[in-house]
Amino acid sequence: MALHRYLLGEDALPKKWYNVLADMPTKPAPYLNPATKKPVGPEDLSAIFPMDLIAQEVSADRWIDIPEEVLEVLGLWRPTPLHRAWRLEQALGTPARIYYKNESVSPPGSHKPNTSVAQAFYNKKAGMKRLSTETGAGQWGSALAFACNYYGLECKVYMVKVSYEQKPYRRSMIHSWGANVIPSPSNETNAGREILARHPDSPGSLGIAISEAVEDAATHGDTNYSLGSVLNHVVLHQTVVGLELKKQMEMAGEKPDILIGCTGGGSNFGGLVAPYVPDKLENPDLRIIAVEPSSCPTLTKGAFAYDFGDTAQMTPLMQMFTLGHDFVPPGIHAGGLRYHGMSPIVSALVNDGTAEAVAGDQLEVFESGVLFARTEGIIPAPETSHAIWAAVQEAKKCNETGQEKVICFNLSGHGHFDMGAYDAYFAGQLQDYPYPEDAIKESMAALPKL
Amino acid sequence: MALHRYLLGEDALPKKWYNVLADMPTKPAPYLNPATKKPVGPEDLSAIFPMDLIAQEVSADRWIDIPEEVLEVLGLWRPTPLHRAWRLEQALGTPARIYYKNESVSPPGSHKPNTSVAQAFYNKKAGMKRLSTETGAGQWGSALAFACNYYGLECKVYMVKVSYEQKPYRRSMIHSWGANVIPSPSNETNAGREILARHPDSPGSLGIAISEAVEDAATHGDTNYSLGSVLNHVVLHQTVVGLELKKQMEMAGEKPDILIGCTGGGSNFGGLVAPYVPDKLENPDLRIIAVEPSSCPTLTKGAFAYDFGDTAQMTPLMQMFTLGHDFVPPGIHAGGLRYHGMSPIVSALVNDGTAEAVAGDQLEVFESGVLFARTEGIIPAPETSHAIWAAVQEAKKCNETGQEKVICFNLSGHGHFDMGAYDAYFAGQLQDYPYPEDAIKESMAALPKL
Repeated sequence: MALHRYLLGEDALPKKWYNVLADMPTKPAPYLNPATKKPVGPEDLSAIFPMDLIAQEVSADRWIDIPEEVLEVLGLWRPTPLHRAWRLEQALGTPARIYYKNESVSPPGSHKPNTSVAQAFYNKKAGMKRLSTETGAGQWGSALAFACNYYGLECKVYMVKVSYEQKPYRRSMIHSWGANVIPSPSNETNAGREILARHPDSPGSLGIAISEAVEDAATHGDTNYSLGSVLNHVVLHQTVVGLELKKQMEMAGEKPDILIGCTGGGSNFGGLVAPYVPDKLENPDLRIIAVEPSSCPTLTKGAFAYDFGDTAQMTPLMQMFTLGHDFVPPGIHAGGLRYHGMSPIVSALVNDGTAEAVAGDQLEVFESGVLFARTEGIIPAPETSHAIWAAVQEAKKCNETGQEKVICFNLSGHGHFDMGAYDAYFAGQLQDYPYPEDAIKESMAALPKL
Repeated sequence: MALHRYLLGEDALPKKWYNVLADMPTKPAPYLNPATKKPVGPEDLSAIFPMDLIAQEVSADRWIDIPEEVLEVLGLWRPTPLHRAWRLEQALGTPARIYYKNESVSPPGSHKPNTSVAQAFYNKKAGMKRLSTETGAGQWGSALAFACNYYGLECKVYMVKVSYEQKPYRRSMIHSWGANVIPSPSNETNAGREILARHPDSPGSLGIAISEAVEDAATHGDTNYSLGSVLNHVVLHQTVVGLELKKQMEMAGEKPDILIGCTGGGSNFGGLVAPYVPDKLENPDLRIIAVEPSSCPTLTKGAFAYDFGDTAQMTPLMQMFTLGHDFVPPGIHAGGLRYHGMSPIVSALVNDGTAEAVAGDQLEVFESGVLFARTEGIIPAPETSHAIWAAVQEAKKCNETGQEKVICFNLSGHGHFDMGAYDAYFAGQLQDYPYPEDAIKESMAALPKL
């Protein structure tokens, strides 16, 4: 009888995060203060982050303890299952063996609470009363709302306007956990008002929403800012995914040949693959593939350069792949991937060849998502469908070569709050976007000069 | 460190269903042919059901093998977790210990696929090409769409109109698995057309939708009908819930004092409690509580009588608690509980005192659902919140008596497709409905005479 779900008991919950900074062949460059162009110190970040997270951001320790208070909340849904996707394999007629790590089982429906819980905990410990944040498709906003609820923190979410309108029930979910959400650009911040003055119909972007949330935190003494991706400490918190995966692949008696995750800011990909970086250094045949939308092709078409993390130039400068902080991506339904930049850790891994990157078109990505729903049962988030699409491409290559590759991807979230996008897909109303060459050329020209 | 999630490996998936008919103190009376008033034979049912399910409906065997082909699909998400709700206990300050069986982890989001998968399998085996069914809130319709997809069956869902409008994304989910869904009453059946002629604005009801789906099956040679609750074989398939619960309670070192499930047609409640009926016979102190909405109070205010399962009087007569087959319940958001009748098994258990029944008002039920979301993290379906509400009531009684009761309830589904109802609740737009005394008096007067 073909069953294949690999479960770990709650005693197998990782007790330490793995810090890939300790083992990276090329380490990310330091963040720079945009005024002085000198590396930022803890004091530059303390206006919006608690010291524990600032310390994690730059730590060289290979292992960092997960506080018990964080483990207790993660234990609501972790460890997450690993599935063998044998029905998907059958449908593809592939000799490849496909596995997926099911992060969709968390209450907010994605990998995002792996870090929101930790961030809320450290902010509460530091005496904060309130957190502000941005969200694209809403996965991160609902994850932070979920986490703040547990630690008695207020939470204010700036949600990219196009997603705010496409995904009304994400807003309801955020309300259910007691948080507040408004569309971005908003009239509540200088950053938002300036964008609205220039572009009253702006669909918003993650870059703009970050500017608003950072401004909110910087201008309220009781408020810190919380970022759902990009930063080193976020990737650190997400390593529970890859650490569990390693144990589960052992249960399955397998070693991955190909690891795949979708990338917006890079956190679900980073969390999946970071614990495998030492394996990659030992075994160059291991392939690590980041998947992004071809309409927001940060890793495949961007520059590896210092840039701001947000549109209003409020963040430190980070060395990363970027399309330019002014770039506003087309309104694809994978709202969580509409970001101009990329995690400095992920960027460094791609830049030195430890990882590679591919880009998928919206229609093919949805086709893969529907194939997955009809074989493995779970309806994936449009972001996640990018990883599925790449896994399908790699499995099809095995059909040609006859190789029995072991492919693992991160099922980073379900699509229960993205059904409007599926409706549009089934109605033939979705489109592929032409490569936004002119817009990218323009925004790249505005990269800060060092 | 407080974690409390009890997981079973896939090897612990029950291999047999438990048939409570073998052990019930008072067995349900036979179904009657409405024309002859004689017990129905298999031939009366064979126009709309396959013989395997007809045999299960009347089987006296205590254990019935689950086919491997069914186990393989159930294994996608089963065994489901058991959780200790210690945060809910803390919030209530109760000495009670509260556990919940988490059926929300199935891809369609509820316990419903436990039977839809089995029903689709047996219908495929019998050579059917297509299944028709009704759905209230959409949990059942999406579960049958999910199951039909695996066995290559077409699927047509008649969805109660008020829910069709309240829950658009349930429709999208049904489409994602390749099925077809229309609002009921519809113009596609005689039953639907007759209702629309009399009540053009009818919000629909499960009774009406059943009539339409049964007519569809009876008038198409390649089509059978599939019912998501009420019938004996449905309760049989749901016993995987209670069978797993027993093993998990052993892992926890506990025995339940109180078992709780919400009841619309009775299947999630029946599946949870049936395996405990022999325990109840040995230990009369074990309490088994069915929870229904006070606006559709089948068990607490209905008659124990023979009645039709549907509005258009197409089904056999079943002895059960009923509000009368003409009763159209108020448009509460727990659409899955808007049914005039009740599983004959559950009815017999309540009628002879093996189980008891309570009824909850919509606003208190939502209040309990939100409390659960903010303590245990999972946003429950409005139907499920009835069970939570009753668990909270019992836990509060323990606050007064100091008793450390062990309370187990079935978390039958999540509310990801019911967020519009939460929006309405938070906006203060939900109401309690007065007991629909006159409507019930009228529909009870139309009970068939024997």
